[in-house]
Amino acid sequence: MPERIVYLNGNFVPESQAHVSIVDRAVVLGATVTEMTRTFHRKPFKLATHIARLYRSLRYTRIDVGLTPEELTDISLRVLEMNFPLTDTEELGLVHFATPGIMAYYADVDPSAVKPTLCAHVFPLRFQPYKRFFLEGVHVVTPSIRHVPPQCYDPKMKYRSRMHFYLADQEIAQSHPGAIALLLDLDGNVTETGGANFLIAQDGAIHAPTLRNTLNGVSRQTIAEICAQLGIPFIERDILTFDVMNADEAYLATTPICLAPVVKINNAPIGSGKPGPLLKRILQAWNEMVGLDIVAQVTGNERKTADL
Amino acid sequence: MPERIVYLNGNFVPESQAHVSIVDRAVVLGATVTEMTRTFHRKPFKLATHIARLYRSLRYTRIDVGLTPEELTDISLRVLEMNFPLTDTEELGLVHFATPGIMAYYADVDPSAVKPTLCAHVFPLRFQPYKRFFLEGVHVVTPSIRHVPPQCYDPKMKYRSRMHFYLADQEIAQSHPGAIALLLDLDGNVTETGGANFLIAQDGAIHAPTLRNTLNGVSRQTIAEICAQLGIPFIERDILTFDVMNADEAYLATTPICLAPVVKINNAPIGSGKPGPLLKRILQAWNEMVGLDIVAQVTGNERKTADL
Amino acid sequence: MPERIVYLNGNFVPESQAHVSIVDRAVVLGATVTEMTRTFHRKPFKLATHIARLYRSLRYTRIDVGLTPEELTDISLRVLEMNFPLTDTEELGLVHFATPGIMAYYADVDPSAVKPTLCAHVFPLRFQPYKRFFLEGVHVVTPSIRHVPPQCYDPKMKYRSRMHFYLADQEIAQSHPGAIALLLDLDGNVTETGGANFLIAQDGAIHAPTLRNTLNGVSRQTIAEICAQLGIPFIERDILTFDVMNADEAYLATTPICLAPVVKINNAPIGSGKPGPLLKRILQAWNEMVGLDIVAQVTGNERKTADL
Amino acid sequence: MPERIVYLNGNFVPESQAHVSIVDRAVVLGATVTEMTRTFHRKPFKLATHIARLYRSLRYTRIDVGLTPEELTDISLRVLEMNFPLTDTEELGLVHFATPGIMAYYADVDPSAVKPTLCAHVFPLRFQPYKRFFLEGVHVVTPSIRHVPPQCYDPKMKYRSRMHFYLADQEIAQSHPGAIALLLDLDGNVTETGGANFLIAQDGAIHAPTLRNTLNGVSRQTIAEICAQLGIPFIERDILTFDVMNADEAYLATTPICLAPVVKINNAPIGSGKPGPLLKRILQAWNEMVGLDIVAQVTGNERKTADL
Amino acid sequence: MPERIVYLNGNFVPESQAHVSIVDRAVVLGATVTEMTRTFHRKPFKLATHIARLYRSLRYTRIDVGLTPEELTDISLRVLEMNFPLTDTEELGLVHFATPGIMAYYADVDPSAVKPTLCAHVFPLRFQPYKRFFLEGVHVVTPSIRHVPPQCYDPKMKYRSRMHFYLADQEIAQSHPGAIALLLDLDGNVTETGGANFLIAQDGAIHAPTLRNTLNGVSRQTIAEICAQLGIPFIERDILTFDVMNADEAYLATTPICLAPVVKINNAPIGSGKPGPLLKRILQAWNEMVGLDIVAQVTGNERKTADL
Amino acid sequence: MPERIVYLNGNFVPESQAHVSIVDRAVVLGATVTEMTRTFHRKPFKLATHIARLYRSLRYTRIDVGLTPEELTDISLRVLEMNFPLTDTEELGLVHFATPGIMAYYADVDPSAVKPTLCAHVFPLRFQPYKRFFLEGVHVVTPSIRHVPPQCYDPKMKYRSRMHFYLADQEIAQSHPGAIALLLDLDGNVTETGGANFLIAQDGAIHAPTLRNTLNGVSRQTIAEICAQLGIPFIERDILTFDVMNADEAYLATTPICLAPVVKINNAPIGSGKPGPLLKRILQAWNEMVGLDIVAQVTGNERKTADL
Repeated sequence: MPERIVYLNGNFVPESQAHVSIVDRAVVLGATVTEMTRTFHRKPFKLATHIARLYRSLRYTRIDVGLTPEELTDISLRVLEMNFPLTDTEELGLVHFATPGIMAYYADVDPSAVKPTLCAHVFPLRFQPYKRFFLEGVHVVTPSIRHVPPQCYDPKMKYRSRMHFYLADQEIAQSHPGAIALLLDLDGNVTETGGANFLIAQDGAIHAPTLRNTLNGVSRQTIAEICAQLGIPFIERDILTFDVMNADEAYLATTPICLAPVVKINNAPIGSGKPGPLLKRILQAWNEMVGLDIVAQVTGNERKTADL
Repeated sequence: MPERIVYLNGNFVPESQAHVSIVDRAVVLGATVTEMTRTFHRKPFKLATHIARLYRSLRYTRIDVGLTPEELTDISLRVLEMNFPLTDTEELGLVHFATPGIMAYYADVDPSAVKPTLCAHVFPLRFQPYKRFFLEGVHVVTPSIRHVPPQCYDPKMKYRSRMHFYLADQEIAQSHPGAIALLLDLDGNVTETGGANFLIAQDGAIHAPTLRNTLNGVSRQTIAEICAQLGIPFIERDILTFDVMNADEAYLATTPICLAPVVKINNAPIGSGKPGPLLKRILQAWNEMVGLDIVAQVTGNERKTADL
Repeated sequence: MPERIVYLNGNFVPESQAHVSIVDRAVVLGATVTEMTRTFHRKPFKLATHIARLYRSLRYTRIDVGLTPEELTDISLRVLEMNFPLTDTEELGLVHFATPGIMAYYADVDPSAVKPTLCAHVFPLRFQPYKRFFLEGVHVVTPSIRHVPPQCYDPKMKYRSRMHFYLADQEIAQSHPGAIALLLDLDGNVTETGGANFLIAQDGAIHAPTLRNTLNGVSRQTIAEICAQLGIPFIERDILTFDVMNADEAYLATTPICLAPVVKINNAPIGSGKPGPLLKRILQAWNEMVGLDIVAQVTGNERKTADL
Repeated sequence: MPERIVYLNGNFVPESQAHVSIVDRAVVLGATVTEMTRTFHRKPFKLATHIARLYRSLRYTRIDVGLTPEELTDISLRVLEMNFPLTDTEELGLVHFATPGIMAYYADVDPSAVKPTLCAHVFPLRFQPYKRFFLEGVHVVTPSIRHVPPQCYDPKMKYRSRMHFYLADQEIAQSHPGAIALLLDLDGNVTETGGANFLIAQDGAIHAPTLRNTLNGVSRQTIAEICAQLGIPFIERDILTFDVMNADEAYLATTPICLAPVVKINNAPIGSGKPGPLLKRILQAWNEMVGLDIVAQVTGNERKTADL
Repeated sequence: MPERIVYLNGNFVPESQAHVSIVDRAVVLGATVTEMTRTFHRKPFKLATHIARLYRSLRYTRIDVGLTPEELTDISLRVLEMNFPLTDTEELGLVHFATPGIMAYYADVDPSAVKPTLCAHVFPLRFQPYKRFFLEGVHVVTPSIRHVPPQCYDPKMKYRSRMHFYLADQEIAQSHPGAIALLLDLDGNVTETGGANFLIAQDGAIHAPTLRNTLNGVSRQTIAEICAQLGIPFIERDILTFDVMNADEAYLATTPICLAPVVKINNAPIGSGKPGPLLKRILQAWNEMVGLDIVAQVTGNERKTADL
Repeated sequence: MPERIVYLNGNFVPESQAHVSIVDRAVVLGATVTEMTRTFHRKPFKLATHIARLYRSLRYTRIDVGLTPEELTDISLRVLEMNFPLTDTEELGLVHFATPGIMAYYADVDPSAVKPTLCAHVFPLRFQPYKRFFLEGVHVVTPSIRHVPPQCYDPKMKYRSRMHFYLADQEIAQSHPGAIALLLDLDGNVTETGGANFLIAQDGAIHAPTLRNTLNGVSRQTIAEICAQLGIPFIERDILTFDVMNADEAYLATTPICLAPVVKINNAPIGSGKPGPLLKRILQAWNEMVGLDIVAQVTGNERKTADL
């Protein structure tokens, strides 16, 4: 198998040569913005939306990568191209990240000479770790670690200073094997997990936390679009643990697997404790949009969307 | 000049080969803890204190680097040794950092096989960028970006998810060239800068922000020791902008240059707008402790501690 | 030029004789509520709306000025009348303010004898200081001083205990000449400036901060009306600095000049860094409503609304 | 009786001619800093302390009155002098206030031509309204209006943007005649009243709220000095309503009457519901310091300190 | 008169024998959830809604009473049945409460043997205490005691750990006889009283506090339904004291009397200080829904809805 | 075995007849204050301190039980007396609780006729459930449920509106069998558990959370006294999870067992993960104070204090 090719700072290099300096501000400050796009049948899903969001993050952090969104789109498509062919059933994750570049002081260089770091790389999407999400459903746990408030840094930027998410995962890992940390904000509202948006269904409507303390995820946006098509109300509001414990259904929305059922919170079942009918409707619409059965793909055909 | 040697994950490698994987959780999550120790006359200053704090950070983040503090101390001394000789006037900065290792999912490896990343590297301490601190004094500015509260992640750990510090610097960079961002906490209390503790003098005593939202810096600890020796009260309390604007003196305490005068906040002079007598007394005691004139070293002899 | 006439506590007096006692609670407590109405072609704009809001402020502060809104309207129109004629191009600002009257203790009078102070005075609206708003656009800066929360006193009252606005202006004045302080609330949401509401445009809609920490400005209300006429969505929501940095357009809405383009925040350009198309559409509708070209009036014909 | 003389902006004028412009920023913004000093036997009490605090307020607000503290002291003494003689039993209150001067826009003048407003005036201290404080004790009530937090403006400055105090008084006036509003901060801690510091006694010590949300009153400082002399611990800490309801004694400390007993909070008695022994000890020491019986002076000899 | 019958833990017992153990967690922890349903003409009003909400509270507290909602409904109807007949004009209040049962430690029993406590009991609805609500209107007062935030326990559960409500009532009882405490949340927003939802009318719409810090009362839900029928907008938003002081009308919504006029807040009149036209419209619709005149019933025919 | 005797509202009744009415405000509002005192060798430990604290709680809640502390002490001693003899190794827990009495409305009685409920009862102290605390050490877990802030109700009162503690226990029960919930306050500081104070040891000193959000426990007070005797610093300060994870030792202080070792927080070991030397020193002093080996008593002699 040929080595994967990575775009890094203007060059296309073999993955084994794609490194970040130990004094890059990615490493020294965690001052990194990022995106992750997946393919469906080799076609990147909503790449333009991801690139646009990356540029909003860049504007917020004042990192100038020296490329237009169109130029970065071209590079991205080339990176995908160079890393094909895949077998027919494989999908790629395409990762972008940008940093302000190296820390001049550590490197003993003139600060004005420092250039941003920009990288686009791919990895084969593996569904194995997510399989149980559709077979058993997800258990979310609210740790005591709280989400960073937006006046420190705004979660509408997709960023990598994620120590709080890491600590939250550590807090629950041992006692709740397989569970996922769902962070509360400083006021106790449900926000998001380290890798996904969280949503609930109640009385036939989808309710999502406000964007105050959550990323406006591309999967979340897709759900809102599907809801609009299907006539399902999509409501943004403050959601508390009480609401989740009394929801009809709950979900994680995340790029690799689109939308997965959450069936338990803090060991208490949500709704029936099983995937619900709204999940199925939304996934079926999504399947049509992308031309494959998402559940079947993730579970390796152990379950299909129709069987949820 | 021979290349510098870096300790990385059990090996001593040339700096040009010391990289972090683009899927290390340093890069992907900013989940990194760190220390920076400096030498005085080639001797690392309070290395044991730095190593002990690193192990508190490791305990908090549950990263097990597989070495005892003693073993890491030995490695650290070897790294220093290997990167000597310096000229007589040169000093080294010794940086440690540790991460939970690569992101298993991106790398397609078994999570249980992931090992932490541990690095110790040096760089020559350059005093040039700090020279003006002693010649002109520092200007601090309170940006609107606020410090992350400790219930998200605790600043008593020295960490590298520092997006808020980066954003704070960006906010003030253009309008206040040369100034340094001094972050307020969510309640408006003064905390710390991206690289230093902040302290003030008032009526013959040193006042420092509480440790709620600040690192317990090694320089800050050293100042407290010196104050105890000199009979200067050292008081921890909530400090607000009003207090700084009406302080007699103010300081930044930071490893590379120990203790520098802050003479302005938000364009308003502090005290006389010049370095004050307590600064001189503390630095003189520090000079004795380390056997050199800190101010002279930083300014290349343009000014001496006695001339402050 | 004859002296201007001021209504003060039941009398119409020459401006040179219109004073506030040094022991009036305006001076001693800042316990003053106020309004500022402007004319267009000598006709006061939405005077009834201003008077109604003044009475809400009076009710909140429990100051009884002893006049009905209708009586105060009559007085106000008389004050305007007495201070005409102006040249054809001049406009007036009409200021109302009311206080609980003198501090009985300082004045050595019986508290029950104290009467509220009520004043209505005019000044010629000068557009010169605002000219650059339309020629260059406004730069807003978010200082570290935060807006007073409504549980201390509610900004839906138009009041004059404005020390926070004054301090905010001082904080940024020297480093950002010509810029205007845009205060954040205690949660980091954008609120208002000392003299204007703030709004942004995004994806064809106008977004305004909620009324939790902002005055419901008459210009802001006018914009909402115009938006309703033009089919532009007008949305109230929490707005953070991230949103402003990524807005398409931004504005200050304020009585003297109606609606001005904001083109920069904290030195970062907003949208294209220039006035945008929604501004022009709204101003054109406003021009029709008032029968003159607002931009031309403010800029002395250096620019017209059509040229934005 | 000759008219009192007021120092205003460089001139000594009769009180009837001492006015503030209706467009002074005292009136328009409440942007005023102030002090109130009283005499004992015609001698101003701790004038230097008051003047020093005024200059801290001026530094915080960046108002430059163009006088040194020494010059202002001289002026102050002259104002006192000019307003003597009093009868032997009279005392004066000396008020200073300073503002940034008129609002240039309203006055149509060049902003650079605006000069600060500075005033020093006196009034005869009347004790009648305070008499019942010593005869009956004070009733404090905690309204729902909260104190402004220091990140908006810092109460260590003595300022006149006091709308919250005014609203707090209005909230309780009708239902609690004669009671005084004791404001809580945003966290529910007891702070201060509109005109006094608040303190309690518990187990032989005096406890005072921290300076986070209270003025460092001169009377409060005097109490701390007296406590130090008498060996009474003086402790700063967060004080909640629970603590007041269970205190042994409670007090208001304020310039006109030094230290008065608080005997009730929210209709619940404090301690025995009567003045307590620590009050008497502190007042006796104060009496000695100033050479008269404070209680006797305030009550017109109806009660003496010894009778408390 | 025969004794009333109470359902308690599986048995129907005479009221005189219906007790709670002194070591039940109702008594020891206040860990009780509850409902109160009233009858109209002997028919329980929205019993299904009350039972459904009780089960949400049970889910949140993880108390398993071992009955389905249907079974509990049957029991409830039997309790009502057993406690009829009433005279034609009498109504019943039906109270449910459930607790986790006794505290095993105090009772020296095996924790696994503890069973929840479940009770359903009735009492004759007395209208006498509410009569003045319709004859004079209600006075609400905002005490300094604040509502418990939902991250401690969520008010969407109907619970009995109500110490804050009790303390709030005590705070205002003596100075405001007959008034009702309306609690603010930690941000100063109006929430609810100890026994009722609070709503206001403004410009022809009903505005209710959000559900963040208030129970979703069944009366409140009924009002929303009636508003939908009548075309009256029903808006949830943050409401502050300012809004109440400037509302056109205000109300308490509570099971025993449905909807009562609030005419005063903190001694200030609301609107005209009298019941308003929207109250009458809503009550008339409610009267039709339940087949009687609510105002007449409460006032013993001293006033009718039509006379409001 | 004869039945235990309970003091209830003026009478001494057999425990089987000691009930609380289902409409007592203990049950309806959780408006209960309480104390729990234990015996050592039949002698109540610090009964005076417990009674004094109860009266502070009564004063705060304005419940007047109609007895002096001395009278209640006599009753308490009689209750103890009546429930002796025990075997030589048995100890009693003495519980006091008081409520404002029944809810007049539910009981259809005149509110002015309602009398407070006052109860004193005993139970045999069982050590079995605590045995493992000394054999294995305690595991504390920080749930997402937060402690009620003191502006809602103050934890310095010992109260029974404890829904938050109950919910916190439920949150962790299933995943952390045997662990104890340690609640954080709204700012993330460590507070207390449902039944104990929490303390840590660091560098030879004992550190306790401030009393802002914790009960001033009698065991905690005893530890402070013992520390004073032994020359161990006892420091009150804000303690965060970081501090606990890096403490040398940690403890629960609670009446039944005095002081127990905490060896784990959120699955991370504290210090060595075993009881430490300061625990032993403090317990040894305590043993002397009470004349028995506390550890031996709790563990049934499986371990002695000397073996810790």
